[in-house]
Amino acid sequence: MNLEPVYADPLSDHMGITLIRVEPGYAEAIMMVKPELLNAHGTTHGGSVFALADVVFSAASNSHGPIALALDVHISFVKATQAGDSLRAVAREENLSKRTGLYRMEITDSCNELVAIAEGRVLRKT
Amino acid sequence: MNLEPVYADPLSDHMGITLIRVEPGYAEAIMMVKPELLNAHGTTHGGSVFALADVVFSAASNSHGPIALALDVHISFVKATQAGDSLRAVAREENLSKRTGLYRMEITDSCNELVAIAEGRVLRKT
Amino acid sequence: MNLEPVYADPLSDHMGITLIRVEPGYAEAIMMVKPELLNAHGTTHGGSVFALADVVFSAASNSHGPIALALDVHISFVKATQAGDSLRAVAREENLSKRTGLYRMEITDSCNELVAIAEGRVLRKT
Amino acid sequence: MNLEPVYADPLSDHMGITLIRVEPGYAEAIMMVKPELLNAHGTTHGGSVFALADVVFSAASNSHGPIALALDVHISFVKATQAGDSLRAVAREENLSKRTGLYRMEITDSCNELVAIAEGRVLRKT
Repeated sequence: MNLEPVYADPLSDHMGITLIRVEPGYAEAIMMVKPELLNAHGTTHGGSVFALADVVFSAASNSHGPIALALDVHISFVKATQAGDSLRAVAREENLSKRTGLYRMEITDSCNELVAIAEGRVLRKT
Repeated sequence: MNLEPVYADPLSDHMGITLIRVEPGYAEAIMMVKPELLNAHGTTHGGSVFALADVVFSAASNSHGPIALALDVHISFVKATQAGDSLRAVAREENLSKRTGLYRMEITDSCNELVAIAEGRVLRKT
Repeated sequence: MNLEPVYADPLSDHMGITLIRVEPGYAEAIMMVKPELLNAHGTTHGGSVFALADVVFSAASNSHGPIALALDVHISFVKATQAGDSLRAVAREENLSKRTGLYRMEITDSCNELVAIAEGRVLRKT
Repeated sequence: MNLEPVYADPLSDHMGITLIRVEPGYAEAIMMVKPELLNAHGTTHGGSVFALADVVFSAASNSHGPIALALDVHISFVKATQAGDSLRAVAREENLSKRTGLYRMEITDSCNELVAIAEGRVLRKT
């Protein structure tokens, strides 16, 4: 198990997302909610929560070798969070076939309460 | 019609998203794809495309007065874009009831080709 | 244009769904809401509305020749309908690539009011 | 725990769906795949799989007393099944607030393999 930060991508750097674990079909990342990640209501922007979910979705779905391209993601928002909160996202593979992969992402806050749930499908380049 | 940039929120500033038009049930924004918005494949990150969609979703759904809270968003990715491309998002209201609102977001590139389609629901605080 | 009923599939027969038009990337069907299609609240069952949407989704996505397999569908319910109402569904292609297709389905009632909106993706067998 | 069949609704009768367990925030149902539930490819129709998911979604979300109205459902199809297969659906509550509820539905076949996953949101009448 590797808990050293793994380089994810430019957007992760820009958002302060740190990928801390990648295994076949699994990925985990954390994001500190800084003021620039907020929305007009002063809570964490849906775009910030989604970006965190998308980073683990991408890492988990690309963990097998063949390039995986996101087809769609459905995200359900559950709890609003604030600046200073630390969010954690985990992606788990639910299905893998030759041509597609299906992943579930859970985002929780520092109280381990559910912030959002997402489900994403990838097309695998073969 | 107002084509002056409208202040959206801190994340929009951070991502370079400019809200250019807000009317009741409608919003429009643009985003230049800068290098920090890319993913590991060198194309625009799904999180960047979603953030742009989310900004117009939020602006359109909050355009009537009562606070609108995002419940869920489903996004379908259609075309990969690159650094230097300019993306445009439009949100249109498909349904508005006392307690919820439904919006469709279309993201297109500078060739006016479809990049992504999203559908989002809000809960309206009354 | 063919307005003769097109044979869809066994479930369509069982639900009273009639496919009335199929063109490349397009399909249209109608369904009379009979008592057996209702839910416990006495309104049209979500499963009935979805089945109608799925029939036009399948017809439109299989209209090009290669077999299209549904990957996912997102449906948003807008208006409740009752026994005796006549529902109409239209599927329109939003994107077609070598390996996938994206479709939008709109379901309306006899007053031409929106009942539900769905978005579906298929994988194309090549 | 009640394993006697619970009356669900008219569509369940029509599709051969049997609700076998309902607890607060939880429901379970089974459906034998009869020939009338198939699609044009000879496999179980997406509309049949969705109806089964919708029945447990509705039972679980209405298990607390206040009427729950479905807002949206996202379903991901994983495995095709055939006539004679027996499908089982389970709905589990992931979140419950005063005004909404979020549920995850899993559909499996008689080999206990995943057939589909769905996520649904309800609005609660208060």
